[in-house]
Amino acid sequence: MKLGILFSGRGSNLGALIDACADPDYPAEIVIAICNNPNASGIATAEKAGIPLQIINHREFESRDTFDAALDVTLKEAGVELVCNAGFMRILTDGFVSSWHNRQLNIHPSLLPAFKGLHVHERVLTAGVRISGASVHFVRAEMDEGPIIAQVAIPVELDDTPESLAERVLACEHELYPMAVRLVAEGKARVQGERVIIEGDPDMKAAPLFIPPLGK
Amino acid sequence: MKLGILFSGRGSNLGALIDACADPDYPAEIVIAICNNPNASGIATAEKAGIPLQIINHREFESRDTFDAALDVTLKEAGVELVCNAGFMRILTDGFVSSWHNRQLNIHPSLLPAFKGLHVHERVLTAGVRISGASVHFVRAEMDEGPIIAQVAIPVELDDTPESLAERVLACEHELYPMAVRLVAEGKARVQGERVIIEGDPDMKAAPLFIPPLGK
Repeated sequence: MKLGILFSGRGSNLGALIDACADPDYPAEIVIAICNNPNASGIATAEKAGIPLQIINHREFESRDTFDAALDVTLKEAGVELVCNAGFMRILTDGFVSSWHNRQLNIHPSLLPAFKGLHVHERVLTAGVRISGASVHFVRAEMDEGPIIAQVAIPVELDDTPESLAERVLACEHELYPMAVRLVAEGKARVQGERVIIEGDPDMKAAPLFIPPLGK
Repeated sequence: MKLGILFSGRGSNLGALIDACADPDYPAEIVIAICNNPNASGIATAEKAGIPLQIINHREFESRDTFDAALDVTLKEAGVELVCNAGFMRILTDGFVSSWHNRQLNIHPSLLPAFKGLHVHERVLTAGVRISGASVHFVRAEMDEGPIIAQVAIPVELDDTPESLAERVLACEHELYPMAVRLVAEGKARVQGERVIIEGDPDMKAAPLFIPPLGK
């Protein structure tokens, strides 16, 4: 499956997907990475890996519509089959989202539906929750909504700062996102009635979603 | 620490707390159990264990205020220091809640702040989340709000029904609630700025909150 990666910053999830795709057995390849921010440090990650890269600076567009149209054309010209948002900090228009319906993924650093939006880790710590996590989901028009493909639960430690929590969550994201993309690429994760049905993967219960019984 | 347990139904968390308190090393004892429902099957659990039991039928009271006043008097006469809601299906008045501020706990079958309220497991399955859980928290005026003491994460299985998920969550609740009560009774869980600070328990990171890294 041909992937197009959208990113805005350091592109650490782009890096994780590049690494996953380097395995010849991985069922996806990155055909383009698009960055809206010409100063993003993730640009170097794409270049170093020899990934086709386009910088599409949203500031050079008059409207969200024209920016999203440029994204759309670039993705389609590259033959993209699945769009992966990887720290892409632009809100996409409903038109763009619906034209990539069930063909666009996002990763969010919380256990959705809790803590949608920005400044997740600060809000998690302020709320005093003991368990946070990360989620990969199909993109819908509302931010951080859509059918969930995979999640990981991560304990919040008592001395966590937003930075220390972010670091541990991000390390898990780097395993979660390639796993979710694999499920989609292999046709094992399908949307049915706005829920994701996972088929035929005996590891699904044993690996990322396994949490031992309390106290064991 | 002297516990008063409020319940309305089968009292399975009451049973878990009874079992915990049977250990002479456990730092709490149940001095009274109060049930608002004269037909609750949990009444037999309390009687069998020889726990002092009061049935206070809310239908015999004119208002929430008079019902809550009766609860309050009964708890105080029994010398209760910590109230534990264990499947207590009545909304308590703000006056009752504030008079037991930081001395009343509740258990809820989700990873709060997600899925407050009723019919949790149905809503979890409809939302398609991959990880659910349970939470013990200090009670505040708003339902299922308040500083969180302990949580457990539980994977949702792909073939779960509300009943099968409820059963697994409940089994974890029965370990989580006694653990949270122990922390409060030993003075190790304290509210500071509407967050719970846990002190001096080396097991806290290793046991109920431990979740292995993804895929390990």
